[in-house]
Amino acid sequence: MSLPISNIPIPAILEIRENVIQDLEKILIKHQFKRVGVLFDSFTFEHYKIKVESSCTSVKITTYEMQADLDIHALTDFAFDLERYDAIVAIGGGAIIDYGKYIAHIRRVPFISMPTSASNDGFASSNCSLIINEKKTTVPAKIPYGIIADLSIIKNAPTSMLLAGVGDLMSNITALYDWDFEEKHGVATVNHFAAMLSKKAVNSFIRTPMEDLTRPIFLKELVSSLTMGGIATVISGNSAPISGSEHLISHALDKHAEKPQMHGLQVGIATYIMANVQNHRAERMM
Amino acid sequence: MSLPISNIPIPAILEIRENVIQDLEKILIKHQFKRVGVLFDSFTFEHYKIKVESSCTSVKITTYEMQADLDIHALTDFAFDLERYDAIVAIGGGAIIDYGKYIAHIRRVPFISMPTSASNDGFASSNCSLIINEKKTTVPAKIPYGIIADLSIIKNAPTSMLLAGVGDLMSNITALYDWDFEEKHGVATVNHFAAMLSKKAVNSFIRTPMEDLTRPIFLKELVSSLTMGGIATVISGNSAPISGSEHLISHALDKHAEKPQMHGLQVGIATYIMANVQNHRAERMM
Amino acid sequence: MSLPISNIPIPAILEIRENVIQDLEKILIKHQFKRVGVLFDSFTFEHYKIKVESSCTSVKITTYEMQADLDIHALTDFAFDLERYDAIVAIGGGAIIDYGKYIAHIRRVPFISMPTSASNDGFASSNCSLIINEKKTTVPAKIPYGIIADLSIIKNAPTSMLLAGVGDLMSNITALYDWDFEEKHGVATVNHFAAMLSKKAVNSFIRTPMEDLTRPIFLKELVSSLTMGGIATVISGNSAPISGSEHLISHALDKHAEKPQMHGLQVGIATYIMANVQNHRAERMM
Amino acid sequence: MSLPISNIPIPAILEIRENVIQDLEKILIKHQFKRVGVLFDSFTFEHYKIKVESSCTSVKITTYEMQADLDIHALTDFAFDLERYDAIVAIGGGAIIDYGKYIAHIRRVPFISMPTSASNDGFASSNCSLIINEKKTTVPAKIPYGIIADLSIIKNAPTSMLLAGVGDLMSNITALYDWDFEEKHGVATVNHFAAMLSKKAVNSFIRTPMEDLTRPIFLKELVSSLTMGGIATVISGNSAPISGSEHLISHALDKHAEKPQMHGLQVGIATYIMANVQNHRAERMM
Repeated sequence: MSLPISNIPIPAILEIRENVIQDLEKILIKHQFKRVGVLFDSFTFEHYKIKVESSCTSVKITTYEMQADLDIHALTDFAFDLERYDAIVAIGGGAIIDYGKYIAHIRRVPFISMPTSASNDGFASSNCSLIINEKKTTVPAKIPYGIIADLSIIKNAPTSMLLAGVGDLMSNITALYDWDFEEKHGVATVNHFAAMLSKKAVNSFIRTPMEDLTRPIFLKELVSSLTMGGIATVISGNSAPISGSEHLISHALDKHAEKPQMHGLQVGIATYIMANVQNHRAERMM
Repeated sequence: MSLPISNIPIPAILEIRENVIQDLEKILIKHQFKRVGVLFDSFTFEHYKIKVESSCTSVKITTYEMQADLDIHALTDFAFDLERYDAIVAIGGGAIIDYGKYIAHIRRVPFISMPTSASNDGFASSNCSLIINEKKTTVPAKIPYGIIADLSIIKNAPTSMLLAGVGDLMSNITALYDWDFEEKHGVATVNHFAAMLSKKAVNSFIRTPMEDLTRPIFLKELVSSLTMGGIATVISGNSAPISGSEHLISHALDKHAEKPQMHGLQVGIATYIMANVQNHRAERMM
Repeated sequence: MSLPISNIPIPAILEIRENVIQDLEKILIKHQFKRVGVLFDSFTFEHYKIKVESSCTSVKITTYEMQADLDIHALTDFAFDLERYDAIVAIGGGAIIDYGKYIAHIRRVPFISMPTSASNDGFASSNCSLIINEKKTTVPAKIPYGIIADLSIIKNAPTSMLLAGVGDLMSNITALYDWDFEEKHGVATVNHFAAMLSKKAVNSFIRTPMEDLTRPIFLKELVSSLTMGGIATVISGNSAPISGSEHLISHALDKHAEKPQMHGLQVGIATYIMANVQNHRAERMM
Repeated sequence: MSLPISNIPIPAILEIRENVIQDLEKILIKHQFKRVGVLFDSFTFEHYKIKVESSCTSVKITTYEMQADLDIHALTDFAFDLERYDAIVAIGGGAIIDYGKYIAHIRRVPFISMPTSASNDGFASSNCSLIINEKKTTVPAKIPYGIIADLSIIKNAPTSMLLAGVGDLMSNITALYDWDFEEKHGVATVNHFAAMLSKKAVNSFIRTPMEDLTRPIFLKELVSSLTMGGIATVISGNSAPISGSEHLISHALDKHAEKPQMHGLQVGIATYIMANVQNHRAERMM
């Protein structure tokens, strides 16, 4: 007898291109979603709600503007107040994506992730960060059924967000080093396929010219590499392929710094520090 | 109702490193294989049979030296003459890997691929090339349960083989362009996840310094990128992510050239030609 | 292109026999669970906690006595207070099984169901019933990784519980009739494999001699048939194979009756009523 | 770390009813099959070819009349001569079903099984019986994507065929006893879910009134129970849930008897003999 080949779930929708928001209904129809709940944060509700509603004529769309800083109890109540949808879509930044991922998880409904920035890899991963007892906590969440990233929207995000995305992606390098180190010391088991995805994601990105952060080719490389890192976590079943000691530094900053910065920015700096500690590829990151 | 998230089978064993052949038994035990049939070609039988046999003490290994140029009937007879093994391992070049993949398929036994060269991506893909009625034919085969690539062995392969591997990998670029083109013209459906794997594989490789083809870092990049391309075909269920018009040129050469060259070499040249025809990234390939 | 064959998750552990509780550690070890959280209700905490603890020597067991009538917020808090276990086991009646299933779901940890009565099919299904805003609500939950039913324990449950189990199983007949009826009227799609499991479960049970409800053969038939019904819901992705109009009557009783009875008892009576309404197999149920 | 929940492939099409052959095109369209190859034996070619062809107007059907007694080489040649279809359908008795299953396996194309008799459980299982070197040999084959059993056709099969089906189904009882026995002696591992399916299949059938073998309710019970037994073999990955010592007796008869009888008839007799040897449930079979 042998162990079975693993079967890994992969996103059934993976659309990373300009103006893909216009094709939302077409995509929903292709996947047989007829009644869909769409979650917005305040910003995306103001800017994209009408666009989304007016672009969907045969699919029945119900929109929700979610408040900031909801904790897990508020999200649980919200989730079970919702009627039954064929899918839940979240459009916006990291927080609203995390809301949608948890809500879809506890209602067991397909989740579609529509990030409007590329500031971290959360839009493709299977965990989210929620407030429990007033503390940010990493929580299992729905594996995205679909990822729809509109590069025309993402390129308008503030530069700091793109840089944060770069930081979060670069951390794959130190995270993989740590994972390997942990396996050698008997406290972890590397999933080689997940590690390969994470490594190819960052390697493919690392030499892309970065003079102009709004060039479609740069954005597509960034977003698709963040996506592949996120999928690596789905495959390994944990965050090890993209999160190591550099993330621990960032978590510590979140707790103790007076003014914590954006996740990806903190992670990016910590990655450079840890790469020096590991004495591994630090010069590549300059 | 919605369509389900796809579950894709991924290799349970993925070991690409130097001297991994020494760990073969350890890997087999970890995956609970107790009785294993190992296929060699003449070259690997001469050079590695004793090494493999002597390294396995508790796992029962039975070795076979396979002749060249067996056709599908000879392989079918061979397959059903074999006793029942927990796994079939093939060690050698493309032909013996293809034999093993087909034999494992029709006997429904896990297949472990141990390529001794990196001249193409066949060791990781789900098809093989067999002789049917005296013609080379592409045939569905067992998806590898495991891929074990020993870089210490692969680096000793002739340079032409490594270059062939580079050629076969570069063809991902033109193949992806063709796939996209076909989708736009309604004759194919791109699997975006498979396409992403294939693209990241070649992008990650493309800027690796190539001065010294025997450097471990170069070899590992080459072999792992070929692997990821092969896995992309498993995901898409066809060869589209890594095989387009440039492969058709190579197939035509196989049929009509007086002296066809190695698959990867022909494909590499054809890739450069097609990149010019497509007017897409040809300069990147120089 | 065709739709893929569905892959359905099935319990990796399925042990229905006398005294299986004594083999708990052996089963946990076989499945590589090293640290396990075990949830009890007051009754099972009193009667089985010591037995479970003393029977596990190498697997690290942490036990919890759960209060009655916890709502979804209390369970959420409890879940995220727990340390990380390899698996969560729930031992007891329907309520504690439901707690465990939800906790395991939101923590994404394998769940092992150890029912101490056979009063309904919840121990094998993928939903649970929780209190949300003071109302019993059906909630998606973890698909059991394992089902371990000790017939020596179950046979000591009050007779009313066994009768309730019979009632809940008989309802498969009317539920399947309703499902078929709904499909004919275009408001549902029957999953034929799930329907087949549910039907064979009840058909296999229906003629078992019922003179002595504590006979092992009767108990095994009852528990295994309830299990197969529960698994049918995992396959269909909804409760349709085992829950139709007769369940709606029971839900209405829960809301409006002065003294609602046990779920399975209400369902059993309602099944007989609906079988007469459907004019289908009512005489078989006498 | 724990082992994953197994994902088992189940038939996407499962239609067991009268006159379902009239709905063939509707079923093919629902599953997006556009070009289909249909294999007949001489009998079904004569009786059903025109019916099938004329009932399909938008799906492109190509029909083949297969000779009897083709060996594995002939089938291999036939398979790779075929153009590429979206699915292969086999309509007829056990032999043609087995041809289709093997052809679909080596071409990696979805297979749809349309048995015209219920003389054994081969139409739902994942093995077939082919001639290799002039000997009947059990060979891995395609897991059916679909099973379409038209009871109006099956009821016209000779009574001996129905009795053979009964015999093959009854053998589940002795096969399960043997499997259990083998596990107790450390030479096999029972898959409890597969065993449960096989047992419920035969238990559900065993008390169905058998006065009139052509009653739809009897036929449906017989065919669906044979189907569930076949699916059990897909789940266990071997034939153990439905084939034990009684099948060995039948295989021996095939080899040594002057006039071997139909598989299911031999198996049925051998089941009764073995049930007496096992001293287990023999009286139930009278």
